[in-house]
Amino acid sequence: MSVFTTENDSFVALIKYGSLILFKMVMMSTVTSVYRVLHRSLTSEEDAYFAVGNNKEKQKKLLIEHPDVKRARLAHQNDLENIVPFFLISLLYISIKPEPKLTEFLFKVFAGSRILHSFVYIGKVRQPARYLTFLCGFLINVYMLVQIFRWAYVL
Amino acid sequence: MSVFTTENDSFVALIKYGSLILFKMVMMSTVTSVYRVLHRSLTSEEDAYFAVGNNKEKQKKLLIEHPDVKRARLAHQNDLENIVPFFLISLLYISIKPEPKLTEFLFKVFAGSRILHSFVYIGKVRQPARYLTFLCGFLINVYMLVQIFRWAYVL
Amino acid sequence: MSVFTTENDSFVALIKYGSLILFKMVMMSTVTSVYRVLHRSLTSEEDAYFAVGNNKEKQKKLLIEHPDVKRARLAHQNDLENIVPFFLISLLYISIKPEPKLTEFLFKVFAGSRILHSFVYIGKVRQPARYLTFLCGFLINVYMLVQIFRWAYVL
Repeated sequence: MSVFTTENDSFVALIKYGSLILFKMVMMSTVTSVYRVLHRSLTSEEDAYFAVGNNKEKQKKLLIEHPDVKRARLAHQNDLENIVPFFLISLLYISIKPEPKLTEFLFKVFAGSRILHSFVYIGKVRQPARYLTFLCGFLINVYMLVQIFRWAYVL
Repeated sequence: MSVFTTENDSFVALIKYGSLILFKMVMMSTVTSVYRVLHRSLTSEEDAYFAVGNNKEKQKKLLIEHPDVKRARLAHQNDLENIVPFFLISLLYISIKPEPKLTEFLFKVFAGSRILHSFVYIGKVRQPARYLTFLCGFLINVYMLVQIFRWAYVL
Repeated sequence: MSVFTTENDSFVALIKYGSLILFKMVMMSTVTSVYRVLHRSLTSEEDAYFAVGNNKEKQKKLLIEHPDVKRARLAHQNDLENIVPFFLISLLYISIKPEPKLTEFLFKVFAGSRILHSFVYIGKVRQPARYLTFLCGFLINVYMLVQIFRWAYVL
């Protein structure tokens, strides 16, 4: 029987919390764009041309990366490095039929820690705040992987 | 009953259009490599050593990033930030049993907009061309997420 | 009938080898962090503040990127560009019911080539070692995509 159906509470938990963090991740593009406009810091020549026309001097200025744009970019990159693996690991984890209550708890904490991570990163909250929110998500990924290994290699 | 089977037209649409954009995404590595060779702009010391031997002067020159290489890299990165979430969102979306005709339409438009995005980015087409192709894919991701939220939190 | 169950040997192969490379990928964050600490090369102001307090001079020094940190970052990025698509392509590939023995072989070789890739990259092994390990994984992705295309567009 398939476990990837809306009758399985573990999979429903992925629908609920997975969609939340995918939304957050997708929204990071918008955050970066807003910072690019606010700080007048663009990516490529076409963008600069669209903003100030053929003025090479002004174009050059627009193509310098503002620290806040870099920060938004790095927060987005950190999401790719953590949320995407989480999702793939979760699919494998659900397939080995974990306890649904525990699964929902793990997914809820992961989603919460990653949403906090973004606020802490973008908001320049002092360390170790960012490290701790990262660590929380990281440990959940490792925990699920260990359970998968036990199922695949030990049992 | 499982929805992730070749009997479900929504999932078949993901097989058809998902494989197309995954192919396009995977090919971006090749595009970047070709530009690296054409513009003689490499990534790391070993690469430079392989190309010109122990000549430190020549090695340094090879390790300067050419704008076209950077452009290909950024187009690839933009794919990771948009196509990967699309795929994961689509899996959740298919699980809540959307109308197959609409699903196929969304996947087709998404695939088209992302293929166009790459040509526009690599081809340096003037803005807002790149922005519009990005927006199209972005809105499809958001639309699917909203439908998932409605299923998970409202109904 | 669903193919994404632990009764399907092709899917079990994804659980076994997919989890291995996801573990390796997730661990790249730790490798980067270790290099950051060893080479005293951090990402953002808060990190530098946490390490040396308000000394602006010392902070600036800490924010210069060490080549080995960059190398670990790029190895991680290369994983995102190759392992994530592999996983998504594999899901589609499994759905068209390939021969399980062949599938397991492909997944095993992919996992091996990506693990080697990381050692070769981090260990600065001379080229074309890195290129060959990359090529191996790349070709497996392309092979699976071609089989999916044949199923979706030719048959």
